[in-house]
Amino acid sequence: VMTVVSKVTSFGKKAGTIGADDPRKVIHGVKVGIALTLVSLFYYTRPLYDGVGGCAMWAVMTVVVVFEFTVGGCLYKGINRAVATSTAGTLAVGIHWIASKSGAKMEPIILSSSVFLLASAATFSRFIPNIKARFDYGITIFILTFSLVAVSGYRVDELLRLAQVRICTIAIGIAICLVVCVLVRPVWAGQELHLLVSRNMDKLADSLEGLVEDYFMNDKKVEGEVSYSQRSQGYKNVLNSKASEDSQANLARWEPRHGKFGFKHPWCQYLKVGAAMRYCAYCMEALNGCINSEFQAPEHMKRHLRDVCMRLSLGSSKVLKEISSSVKSMKESRSIQVLVGEMNDAVEELQVALRSLPKQLTQSPPPPAAAEAATIEKRHCVPAVTISLTEVMPLFTAASLLIEVSERVGG
Amino acid sequence: VMTVVSKVTSFGKKAGTIGADDPRKVIHGVKVGIALTLVSLFYYTRPLYDGVGGCAMWAVMTVVVVFEFTVGGCLYKGINRAVATSTAGTLAVGIHWIASKSGAKMEPIILSSSVFLLASAATFSRFIPNIKARFDYGITIFILTFSLVAVSGYRVDELLRLAQVRICTIAIGIAICLVVCVLVRPVWAGQELHLLVSRNMDKLADSLEGLVEDYFMNDKKVEGEVSYSQRSQGYKNVLNSKASEDSQANLARWEPRHGKFGFKHPWCQYLKVGAAMRYCAYCMEALNGCINSEFQAPEHMKRHLRDVCMRLSLGSSKVLKEISSSVKSMKESRSIQVLVGEMNDAVEELQVALRSLPKQLTQSPPPPAAAEAATIEKRHCVPAVTISLTEVMPLFTAASLLIEVSERVGG
Repeated sequence: VMTVVSKVTSFGKKAGTIGADDPRKVIHGVKVGIALTLVSLFYYTRPLYDGVGGCAMWAVMTVVVVFEFTVGGCLYKGINRAVATSTAGTLAVGIHWIASKSGAKMEPIILSSSVFLLASAATFSRFIPNIKARFDYGITIFILTFSLVAVSGYRVDELLRLAQVRICTIAIGIAICLVVCVLVRPVWAGQELHLLVSRNMDKLADSLEGLVEDYFMNDKKVEGEVSYSQRSQGYKNVLNSKASEDSQANLARWEPRHGKFGFKHPWCQYLKVGAAMRYCAYCMEALNGCINSEFQAPEHMKRHLRDVCMRLSLGSSKVLKEISSSVKSMKESRSIQVLVGEMNDAVEELQVALRSLPKQLTQSPPPPAAAEAATIEKRHCVPAVTISLTEVMPLFTAASLLIEVSERVGG
Repeated sequence: VMTVVSKVTSFGKKAGTIGADDPRKVIHGVKVGIALTLVSLFYYTRPLYDGVGGCAMWAVMTVVVVFEFTVGGCLYKGINRAVATSTAGTLAVGIHWIASKSGAKMEPIILSSSVFLLASAATFSRFIPNIKARFDYGITIFILTFSLVAVSGYRVDELLRLAQVRICTIAIGIAICLVVCVLVRPVWAGQELHLLVSRNMDKLADSLEGLVEDYFMNDKKVEGEVSYSQRSQGYKNVLNSKASEDSQANLARWEPRHGKFGFKHPWCQYLKVGAAMRYCAYCMEALNGCINSEFQAPEHMKRHLRDVCMRLSLGSSKVLKEISSSVKSMKESRSIQVLVGEMNDAVEELQVALRSLPKQLTQSPPPPAAAEAATIEKRHCVPAVTISLTEVMPLFTAASLLIEVSERVGG
């Protein structure tokens, strides 16, 4: 009994933290409740199953299935459902009419072979990436409606009356969904994507600073250590951001003009920026590996490169933060050129510092064996760090260019 | 007209290549067609909407919605649907009974508030990761069934009879799905995951070899160049493999014993191996960046490190291929220890080669300015390559350990 109680409480705590982290999730639950209660009350006066074939049921079903977290998701499913139901219904009634004209023997053959062919073709078409991204849900509904109508035992004139009622109910369901979704604290997929991209940029900037600071400061293990390490791991969220970015960009396409975002806002630019940021994150993962590896560079080498490396990481994280804030405000940044210039200066300084290293190496006084070992170890770490840093640079500038492009096109 | 025709033909070509690449997708389409036709024929004799409330309709709907590409997906949805329908139905009948006892005024209030509360809570619970992974579909069905039953205008005894019929129909739908899914060319999510992991390992091995060869061979631009470059880009598929691995491991958990996989096969081990491989792929992305950067090391430096680098990349790709084939055959490899030993030898050789570099640098005869420039450039590339290589090593061994673990646990 105790384990069950403790499991329930730990589950409750988990749910509580999820709700506290993002209250919109709780609000979403409430919104679904509101929409369903509305549709139930709407149909409470006329019972659900009243001879016509339970049409009001379709309104409830529509609300349950169509209501999504974002407005874009709701629109995507609603439009798909409406269009798929009407086209599949029309097609099925047509085939039904043909079948009913061709005699009692041919009728089941025509109907079931048409179900077989259309279901197979439609199912296969879901594997085509473009169609999957935009019409996946619509195709399910298409198959469903077509089979239901084609297999039903009604005559064509009955079907037409039924179709009219059903399309009405589905329209009511979709309308209730959209009204609740848009009016009660709407969550826009486009805005989510926008925020996700700029938040990820901030995370990258923090991590970059954090990683380099961690590396060069870990001789002075101060109390700030833990917070630094946590901060420096933020880039890990960026590594696997592709799936959520793709799906949000997909849904954002369905959304109308809202807030600062126009109807044809260039959402695919966000995907390009996202890919560039992922590339940065990959480099930082490699950098993280170098920093935490067993081989550590000797102190005097580190000291030689410390200042310039710190300046470079600070410079590039400034660039990232500036880009992120200019994405947030959707304005072109004035200081970005200056900051990129500073960053490039830092890159050049680092190259100069690296150039002066071999001389230091040959002149450094420690016993030769130790010096040799130091040489390898230094090669293992410091250049790796700096090289990774310089590798990341062109990417940052590419990202900044992309963002400027997206700003110009979008607002 | 011409553009429409050309669009249709290009679409047809695309569909054709998808079908040719993976005939199982075409077969899946045919399977859905078969299942739907079966269920239609099953119910063709009794028309779908015949007073009981269109119960046969639920069989068609079940088939359309439950039928998935993999057996695991089919089982996941089928079990979720069956369990959710019966629990939600029972609960709703209970609340209906309570409401009917509490007078005509209280009845709508009790019913609609219960719909509101349960729908809100269930929708929120979908945001909890564990629940989302296993019961996402079930919760949708739970909300749907509960609202439908709670809002319906039936008396309790009618509802019980209805529920019996409906659960029967849904069971028939699920049974038809499972029979067709398992008997006609089944696709097992577990096997897919297994193959995906070993295929990704092969890709990593090929890319590693390809990248290093590309780098050291690009002075002799032979006709093989293009094929090498294509081969070396295989690791890019591994970068974003997380989503598909996660979903397949999720579905594989629902599958019964099949082929070489037992009921409690350690699917989560595959996720760990996948994460390790993704880490390798990140390192290779960084490596690729170094190799394709503008800074190129001078020829004599490259020549100095070429043989040992090639040996290292060959050694580690051999290790990867050996692991991949031992995963494929699910047998512990005998030669893996030897190969890992060889790889580690190559790492040490590389360290020795790096140690001898600074001497070469100071003794090399080219004019001093050029030598200095060469120094930076060399630092930019060769050590980066080698460091990335050595960074990747511990990971390979970690992956190999993980795979051995998974083999021992899994059979």
